[in-house]
Amino acid sequence: MNIKYFMKKALEQANKALLADEIPIGAVLVDNNNNKIISESYNLINANHNATQHAEMIVIHKACQKRQSKFLSNTSLFVTLEPCAMCAAAISEVHIDKIYFGAYDEKKGGLESMMKIYNQHHFFVPEVYGGMNELECSLLLKNFFLDQR
Amino acid sequence: MNIKYFMKKALEQANKALLADEIPIGAVLVDNNNNKIISESYNLINANHNATQHAEMIVIHKACQKRQSKFLSNTSLFVTLEPCAMCAAAISEVHIDKIYFGAYDEKKGGLESMMKIYNQHHFFVPEVYGGMNELECSLLLKNFFLDQR
Repeated sequence: MNIKYFMKKALEQANKALLADEIPIGAVLVDNNNNKIISESYNLINANHNATQHAEMIVIHKACQKRQSKFLSNTSLFVTLEPCAMCAAAISEVHIDKIYFGAYDEKKGGLESMMKIYNQHHFFVPEVYGGMNELECSLLLKNFFLDQR
Repeated sequence: MNIKYFMKKALEQANKALLADEIPIGAVLVDNNNNKIISESYNLINANHNATQHAEMIVIHKACQKRQSKFLSNTSLFVTLEPCAMCAAAISEVHIDKIYFGAYDEKKGGLESMMKIYNQHHFFVPEVYGGMNELECSLLLKNFFLDQR
């Protein structure tokens, strides 16, 4: 699987978020069997009037709709920021196999930074790879929040 | 606020789930200002082909749509089962003030049983009251899973 390619695709989504006045976080879900993108999105908190509409939640929703399946086995998630606890648990609920994320989230990261949610029992545990294209992913966010001040 | 009344409403939703072949968990979101129900639902995992479609997530989504607001301040959630980590984090994201839940979930409860998610920093922390109509809420689930065997 071409990790760099799919991280670029997630970054493309994050850049689209910027143009739409959303926090620049992008995500892409890929089918492990054929390396094709199933769904992609960015944060839609403002557009959907709902603070739970993180990029990962949208990508999961779109993929479930497309596959008409409650589980998303044999897929990999590429996301520009470390998923929060909500998204980490959602990723586990739908049985996504692998997570590749960009920047670490010191405040709300649910995989490594703020908490390690998969250390608890009774979770389906995906493989996790952090720090992909980290600098580009984190600069996008830092610049966005600097501009907001 | 009439806690028993709204727990009965959440139980009504859980019973509707049974008829729809979904896991019998129901939730109701109430406006703290006027004690009116904003949204109610049950688990829609099978109907929506999506393992993240817990009753709490649906209730949040419907309420955000109704209010056209990304936050749900000044509301109380009544739910028949202790929210999982995903739902607990989602409830925090949208700033729901109070959670009243029925049965404790030893395996996946994110508030008291499996983990105490709000013990971490950087969460908006709602007030939590567990064990409301506990016996009725847990029997509904136990009987459902016994029937599934």
